[in-house]
Amino acid sequence: MKATFLIHCPDQPGIISTVTSFIQQSGGNIVYLDQHVDKQAEVFFMRLEGEFTQFDKAESQIEENFEKEIAVPYAMEWSVHYGNEKPKMALFVSKYNHCLYDLLIRYSSGELSVEIPFIISNHNELQNIAKQFKIPFYHIPVTRDNKSAAEEKQLKLLKEHMVDFIVLARYMQIVTSRLIEEYPNKIINIHHSFLPAFAGAKPYHAAFNRGVKIIGATSHYVTEELDAGPIIEQDTTRVSHVHKVSDFIEKGRDLEKLVLSRAVQLHVNRKTMVYNNKTVIFT
Amino acid sequence: MKATFLIHCPDQPGIISTVTSFIQQSGGNIVYLDQHVDKQAEVFFMRLEGEFTQFDKAESQIEENFEKEIAVPYAMEWSVHYGNEKPKMALFVSKYNHCLYDLLIRYSSGELSVEIPFIISNHNELQNIAKQFKIPFYHIPVTRDNKSAAEEKQLKLLKEHMVDFIVLARYMQIVTSRLIEEYPNKIINIHHSFLPAFAGAKPYHAAFNRGVKIIGATSHYVTEELDAGPIIEQDTTRVSHVHKVSDFIEKGRDLEKLVLSRAVQLHVNRKTMVYNNKTVIFT
Amino acid sequence: MKATFLIHCPDQPGIISTVTSFIQQSGGNIVYLDQHVDKQAEVFFMRLEGEFTQFDKAESQIEENFEKEIAVPYAMEWSVHYGNEKPKMALFVSKYNHCLYDLLIRYSSGELSVEIPFIISNHNELQNIAKQFKIPFYHIPVTRDNKSAAEEKQLKLLKEHMVDFIVLARYMQIVTSRLIEEYPNKIINIHHSFLPAFAGAKPYHAAFNRGVKIIGATSHYVTEELDAGPIIEQDTTRVSHVHKVSDFIEKGRDLEKLVLSRAVQLHVNRKTMVYNNKTVIFT
Amino acid sequence: MKATFLIHCPDQPGIISTVTSFIQQSGGNIVYLDQHVDKQAEVFFMRLEGEFTQFDKAESQIEENFEKEIAVPYAMEWSVHYGNEKPKMALFVSKYNHCLYDLLIRYSSGELSVEIPFIISNHNELQNIAKQFKIPFYHIPVTRDNKSAAEEKQLKLLKEHMVDFIVLARYMQIVTSRLIEEYPNKIINIHHSFLPAFAGAKPYHAAFNRGVKIIGATSHYVTEELDAGPIIEQDTTRVSHVHKVSDFIEKGRDLEKLVLSRAVQLHVNRKTMVYNNKTVIFT
Repeated sequence: MKATFLIHCPDQPGIISTVTSFIQQSGGNIVYLDQHVDKQAEVFFMRLEGEFTQFDKAESQIEENFEKEIAVPYAMEWSVHYGNEKPKMALFVSKYNHCLYDLLIRYSSGELSVEIPFIISNHNELQNIAKQFKIPFYHIPVTRDNKSAAEEKQLKLLKEHMVDFIVLARYMQIVTSRLIEEYPNKIINIHHSFLPAFAGAKPYHAAFNRGVKIIGATSHYVTEELDAGPIIEQDTTRVSHVHKVSDFIEKGRDLEKLVLSRAVQLHVNRKTMVYNNKTVIFT
Repeated sequence: MKATFLIHCPDQPGIISTVTSFIQQSGGNIVYLDQHVDKQAEVFFMRLEGEFTQFDKAESQIEENFEKEIAVPYAMEWSVHYGNEKPKMALFVSKYNHCLYDLLIRYSSGELSVEIPFIISNHNELQNIAKQFKIPFYHIPVTRDNKSAAEEKQLKLLKEHMVDFIVLARYMQIVTSRLIEEYPNKIINIHHSFLPAFAGAKPYHAAFNRGVKIIGATSHYVTEELDAGPIIEQDTTRVSHVHKVSDFIEKGRDLEKLVLSRAVQLHVNRKTMVYNNKTVIFT
Repeated sequence: MKATFLIHCPDQPGIISTVTSFIQQSGGNIVYLDQHVDKQAEVFFMRLEGEFTQFDKAESQIEENFEKEIAVPYAMEWSVHYGNEKPKMALFVSKYNHCLYDLLIRYSSGELSVEIPFIISNHNELQNIAKQFKIPFYHIPVTRDNKSAAEEKQLKLLKEHMVDFIVLARYMQIVTSRLIEEYPNKIINIHHSFLPAFAGAKPYHAAFNRGVKIIGATSHYVTEELDAGPIIEQDTTRVSHVHKVSDFIEKGRDLEKLVLSRAVQLHVNRKTMVYNNKTVIFT
Repeated sequence: MKATFLIHCPDQPGIISTVTSFIQQSGGNIVYLDQHVDKQAEVFFMRLEGEFTQFDKAESQIEENFEKEIAVPYAMEWSVHYGNEKPKMALFVSKYNHCLYDLLIRYSSGELSVEIPFIISNHNELQNIAKQFKIPFYHIPVTRDNKSAAEEKQLKLLKEHMVDFIVLARYMQIVTSRLIEEYPNKIINIHHSFLPAFAGAKPYHAAFNRGVKIIGATSHYVTEELDAGPIIEQDTTRVSHVHKVSDFIEKGRDLEKLVLSRAVQLHVNRKTMVYNNKTVIFT
């Protein structure tokens, strides 16, 4: 059984050898270790994959021991994830289909190792795609007046299906504080600009008007402040004076798909950690 | 003799065939033609290179005829540049040497076909590099109190040497309106961010604090508004959580050199046109 | 009506002005012109888009006049394509679905302006995807013994549906001379390496074994020599020692999709010309 | 005092915890650890940086203990490098100055932390640059007849100055087996193509003739087989039909400089390990 440990704590000497010795003595063979120290914040981060031959029986014991012997003395925040778990991912969409298609194809081919209990949309247009891939589709319209009720429905579905994280695949509504608080650093958005340039609405139009020579896309965890959450992944592509806004949008779609799917993949593989509104992305 | 025509005018039918027929009838063979229409602004742009076998005698006549027969009826703004002209480029620098070195090496190898009458700096540090490449170096300190007098000295040098355009190779002073008015779309700056993100001071620090995964550099023509002029060239490179601000700066230096030298090369080869605070960059 | 002219001929003075005058006098307004001279081969290339207000009546007359007045004297090879034509594209696939999905999504969203009369496959696996997008699917198995008969069936379908060009979307069979001769520079392949490196079978394995730090994908027109036809488009992405062959394959899929769809788009928009086993790609 | 350990050995459980415990018990604080397992070859690689407060006294003792307690039982090959050491880098050049300039500027600005005891060239052209940067320059002509004698002179200089590694900064001679054997994985070359495409002479001409849309540069350790050694770093840039061979060469120069300097920097910072003709590049 593979177990992936994610750890962060105040930086201090001896953490690596203490943790690796513990894993070793608990019957685990370390197959991957990556660590990072944020010198400014004086915080230590580690991602460790161990292969445990007889983990099943001892699982709870190891977790208990780790908490007592390591986590408490080092003031760690930590989590452990097992190789046989598939996280449950909810998809929120509106009318654009490219990111939805991209994620569903990766899901159906097995490249993206998640369960997708349902797709929520404030519009009806993408219902057919959900049907193609046999995913339940819930149409929850959002208007100025029903925003709170709509959110209740969303939360109910998320809870019922024990969703682990949410992907906003070009969902054209601003999600509320309540959802963000329930899923801290667990809502992944794709913004169609090279943030922090062109946050907010109509970034391709803004980029066109500014006359940039490169456009981008940014995937980030959603926080209270719009388009200002911790960046997971970005990418860029060249444009020139020959490209109209519609060309920016077309080229941008390919960027959005790639950047969002990479971010989702990183999250699913437990390769992201968040601290001080920034991410550590393990390789 | 090669002659390069740069033209822009209100878009209307027949411009290309009229201009190409004129060139043909004036004894020129068109070896390159690129054109662009800005549909929003309804403006036509053209860059045309003609090879004239007996141009020397007829030069002034052709210019006169072009003005009368073509430019006036089509309400064109136009210029023509001859293959035997080397534009005069003044360099403004402060303390960073990487962009200065980069341009001087390209100049001395013949890759960059300009004359460099002098280098101006508000500091003394880079005098030795000027000496290595045998370029006159003028140290004109700039303080809050002498700003206007310093500018007078700069302008005097620029005029005396009939400078065609100015390159701010990491010059750490804001140039004044007066200089900008004298050299409209003829002052090239390099800004060490992916504009419009992180305009102003300390962009690498700002990028680091935002936790971006890609940094950039932008070369643009200087206008009144800081870091908001027409963009000539941009490029980007990846960073990650392992990079400190000092790594951003080091990686950024390589970007700045490349982006600035490409922008200068495009300007020197008359491949840039400016309209509505945006550039058309011919290939 | 928009008409796009593609022209190549021996380089000589006066071509541009002659052609542009002809278009002008035939009632066309030139909205785009790009030209290239291959100095080595002394060949002139041009792509010209004209907007004709009353073209429908005069179409055949203009073509006839162009042939007589321009093409014959200048020894041109030329073609003209009208804005209301949608080229017919046949898709050949095997078992990999990523390129097929990518093209079909672009097709169904209208981004890719073609008709797709059918999909041919030597396997059955992708039949369901064809069904999702309501495209006829022909399963034509290919074995060592039936190769010639299979090809007959393919050709028959291609002829019946008056197919304009063929896209091999990870079709895992070598197409025969006969097909290539029927569709010269009209069969587009995607090869999963940065050609000419790693031509032939298993390029990701070869790249892995060589220890490259960058992998690529190449789309090209199919010629007799395997993976040696005129290159339309290439792109690359970084890899490192942490990536296994399976990671190369996964990263490569995203490259393959993008590179193939860009190449197909260029072909559909008549932006490619072929000469001496190389392409001119207009912008 | 910072000490960097580079380790490789047959993969087996417990290495990480054993090594980290040793470092910890020897008074070192681990500030960086990266590890990699080559599953095919079943080899474990590790790079570890430790901060030792009282290392100076104990240095030899720690090395001795490490050898005895860790390296021997685990059948390790290992080396340790101290923060106060600057490796001695010899530069071999011919007539092209761009890579030489690039490395010398990084050296003189302190970005590249090496000593450069001398530059060797088979030509005289770059002597002035050596003088600018105050580096001894040895002109050792190489002809078919004197190749062996020339090599003797080179080796004598290398030995006298206790050179640690050699950089071939566009040195246009094939280095001999004798030199390679003396400096295994310590001679860094820059090849002006995206290897393995276009190995050997005139790669830009070959790339031009093939009609590629992207060109590259590759830095690698020199081995017996020409341009076939372990790749350290590669990069690519776009070209198109408008670029002549001379444009490939000009664009390529910028690639060569960047790729070579990155590779040298990685080597100097002990971030490269070689195994089975491939590199592990730590971040």
